[in-house]
Amino acid sequence: MITSNGNPKVKQVVQWQTKAKERRRDGIFLAEGFKMYAEAPEEDILEVYVAENALEQVPQRKEIQEKLVRTGFETVSSQVFQKMSDTQTPQGILCVIRQRIWRLETLLQAPDPLFLVLEGLQDPGNLGTIVRSCEGAGVTGIFMDKETVDIYNPKVIRATMGSVYRVPFVCVEDLPKTVDRLREKGILVYAAHLDGKRYYDGVSFRAGTAFLIGNEGRGLRRELADRADDYLKIPMEGQVESLNAAIAASLFVYEAHRQRHMIQG
Amino acid sequence: MITSNGNPKVKQVVQWQTKAKERRRDGIFLAEGFKMYAEAPEEDILEVYVAENALEQVPQRKEIQEKLVRTGFETVSSQVFQKMSDTQTPQGILCVIRQRIWRLETLLQAPDPLFLVLEGLQDPGNLGTIVRSCEGAGVTGIFMDKETVDIYNPKVIRATMGSVYRVPFVCVEDLPKTVDRLREKGILVYAAHLDGKRYYDGVSFRAGTAFLIGNEGRGLRRELADRADDYLKIPMEGQVESLNAAIAASLFVYEAHRQRHMIQG
Repeated sequence: MITSNGNPKVKQVVQWQTKAKERRRDGIFLAEGFKMYAEAPEEDILEVYVAENALEQVPQRKEIQEKLVRTGFETVSSQVFQKMSDTQTPQGILCVIRQRIWRLETLLQAPDPLFLVLEGLQDPGNLGTIVRSCEGAGVTGIFMDKETVDIYNPKVIRATMGSVYRVPFVCVEDLPKTVDRLREKGILVYAAHLDGKRYYDGVSFRAGTAFLIGNEGRGLRRELADRADDYLKIPMEGQVESLNAAIAASLFVYEAHRQRHMIQG
Repeated sequence: MITSNGNPKVKQVVQWQTKAKERRRDGIFLAEGFKMYAEAPEEDILEVYVAENALEQVPQRKEIQEKLVRTGFETVSSQVFQKMSDTQTPQGILCVIRQRIWRLETLLQAPDPLFLVLEGLQDPGNLGTIVRSCEGAGVTGIFMDKETVDIYNPKVIRATMGSVYRVPFVCVEDLPKTVDRLREKGILVYAAHLDGKRYYDGVSFRAGTAFLIGNEGRGLRRELADRADDYLKIPMEGQVESLNAAIAASLFVYEAHRQRHMIQG
């Protein structure tokens, strides 16, 4: 059992919790909690740590117990686990997971794909929630720029509720170039934009479609928005200027889902 | 100018920032930032504090300058303002606002109303985002129970982006009783529920409608959900079990908005 904060593995986990650069260098991310462990692809689990006080709960969870036997794990004293954890009240299980790599060109092979393109999103909760909604709406993949909060940030991972394991995403060097590539492939690109003339629920998203969603404060950069086939807006009553970015993204992808699954009259 | 943390007004603001009980006792809430001050109903503004270092920005904002002259304000040293503020990097303007009171029976007078009923929502960001989406979707009013996070919590207020001034809401003693009252008035009540047989986008919300949204972790209590006319679910691809509560609520109210504004064929 690991009982010292000075243990090199503990020190490394703390580094991974707080530093995007360390996660990137090692090609890993951290996931905490029973649900996140249970849903993690087994072949990508590199290390597992269980707090001493959480071990008692394991026998009540058959699938966790069986998985722990297969993946192996190290026990950590409850105090040390608190140090390793990103949360105030940790569930007592933490795993180190290999980052998956998806390729733009592979994702482009999907028939009538549905993409989300994120520019400069800053709030970890928003990004995580978006990933979760994207899985629910059947999104083919998410593209984001380097300015967007690190998708492997522990707060993002938590907010995805496991969808991060299943929704393909690519963090690209040049978002405008990515959008050009999407359009070359015949994908219709729509910018979620307050200056839109048309409403998002009046346009067909049945063919290959991509939605551009901008930063929470300033929205989309002109350079990116201007590459879209059209600007689309969300109807807004009262004095609302815009919706939360995760809400806007979810409304767009769910509208596409609705249209694609509607029973034809 | 207030320059001491010991000033009784400063101490009172700090109390209001952190204690729901104090806000309730005094019937007030706090709003920070230029946008929140600009949109605050003038007749409800009781006190205004401006940080010394924010005063220079005021002349560039004509409408803020004019409003400050009308409402009056007190200057506070930047250090003391930091103490009064709920944020890490305050904009330097904070106001004390009178809580508005809406009545259930008044809201029930609206023709074909659209209501949201929240049970035990815990995340301030979720509640604030929901209020913002509700204004956008033209919701008549929000009902919530005492277990739901205090709507006057500074984090909720911030996330509403000003919608808290404009969306009617009532924090009720007995949510099941409220739902009974809605049904008595002929309002159709739908529970957002994973056990729904029908999808939310296959039901008409043109007549008076209320949606029940439950706690982030456990969903709706049986006692409340069973009072609904029907359970409705959101379609979900992949392995997603549920969406974020603010996303689910927004999808429901925007689906109602879509139907109510659709051009009839």
